[in-house]
Amino acid sequence: MSAIHAHLKKLGITLPKAAAPVANYVPFVRTGGLLVVSGQIAFGPDGLMKGRLGLTMDIATGQQAARLCALNLIAQANVALDGDLDKITQVVRLGGFVNATADFEDIPHVINGASDLMVEVFGDKGRHARAAVACPNLPLGSAVEIDAMFEVK
Amino acid sequence: MSAIHAHLKKLGITLPKAAAPVANYVPFVRTGGLLVVSGQIAFGPDGLMKGRLGLTMDIATGQQAARLCALNLIAQANVALDGDLDKITQVVRLGGFVNATADFEDIPHVINGASDLMVEVFGDKGRHARAAVACPNLPLGSAVEIDAMFEVK
Amino acid sequence: MSAIHAHLKKLGITLPKAAAPVANYVPFVRTGGLLVVSGQIAFGPDGLMKGRLGLTMDIATGQQAARLCALNLIAQANVALDGDLDKITQVVRLGGFVNATADFEDIPHVINGASDLMVEVFGDKGRHARAAVACPNLPLGSAVEIDAMFEVK
Repeated sequence: MSAIHAHLKKLGITLPKAAAPVANYVPFVRTGGLLVVSGQIAFGPDGLMKGRLGLTMDIATGQQAARLCALNLIAQANVALDGDLDKITQVVRLGGFVNATADFEDIPHVINGASDLMVEVFGDKGRHARAAVACPNLPLGSAVEIDAMFEVK
Repeated sequence: MSAIHAHLKKLGITLPKAAAPVANYVPFVRTGGLLVVSGQIAFGPDGLMKGRLGLTMDIATGQQAARLCALNLIAQANVALDGDLDKITQVVRLGGFVNATADFEDIPHVINGASDLMVEVFGDKGRHARAAVACPNLPLGSAVEIDAMFEVK
Repeated sequence: MSAIHAHLKKLGITLPKAAAPVANYVPFVRTGGLLVVSGQIAFGPDGLMKGRLGLTMDIATGQQAARLCALNLIAQANVALDGDLDKITQVVRLGGFVNATADFEDIPHVINGASDLMVEVFGDKGRHARAAVACPNLPLGSAVEIDAMFEVK
């Protein structure tokens, strides 16, 4: 078992099943030392967390949605790396999109739900660059979407 | 003639003229084995496809707009690679932005118009990671904007 | 003093203080020959330039906001490179996000405020690929957010 998988177990985190591609794109592409993972939405054990910040969802719930996106990103990376998450040497970048009204400004706090998980799981290797913006909507009405770039060995 | 150009001919696809830069940015930058192409909007033979999904444009038309963006991305790559599209070893990532109302959720279906074209043209090398989100508007009112990262040799 | 710092002095440009991280993400990550810098908002000497294009801010002011984002990106790169901006061999990509209403189409002109600064500071090495889109809002209500990727030696 990889050190990261052992750490996930200790944290009580079970990775979700990586979603299969449903179109002519793929969940991840590796190029050189980079693993580029497609935008993941907030699918979790109870289905998709739909909602709009500033209207139908509060910040704490939005952070849970962002955390689910991050778990799905790690699940995809796990498939890409044949189950060896220790091959991740750095989380390079997260691109965070929040389904929000024009009145909602606390976009960074929502995406922190994903950033915090990355550091919880990967430690200092989980500290990443990121962008965080609002969108009028996201695929299937998801509250959050996040894509990622990992440095891998 | 490169194999991809021969395949484009067989598909009956004529690449559009790559749009010239109109400001202090450029259509593409190559760094190491990556070719980064600027966001392309839905310019086609009949001008720009303007519109908003969920309000003034249906999904099938939006997919055509996404396809135009993808054609423009390939046209830029063709210039960057001096006409040899066989140098593309992998379409790494598409970033898809759909001009849409807050009610519109079928964002992935629209961007599929671009993803499908990449696989039509490049085969398995065309299968890419992607993110797809909605925006309240896009440059000049374009219905879709897509940027790309290619792996090149 | 690096050549770029001498040029900044000649231009009369003082780099802002790079903003410290306020969460589990970091201002930049270096991977291989790439420096990935987190999205910067329009903090300037008079605080944050808040506003929405098409509603409370005109294009010229939006360009100033974009310029501030670019200055903050360069300030972060300066920290990442231990004060030697000559290590930047190419500005690879800017991702530009404009806080705008659905009626506002002049998104590229706003982001030109950042693109122009990059060329003013770095010359031809400053010519970058970019994407530019609108968002219903941005962190803390900033008028513009821009993230960046630099090629570094």
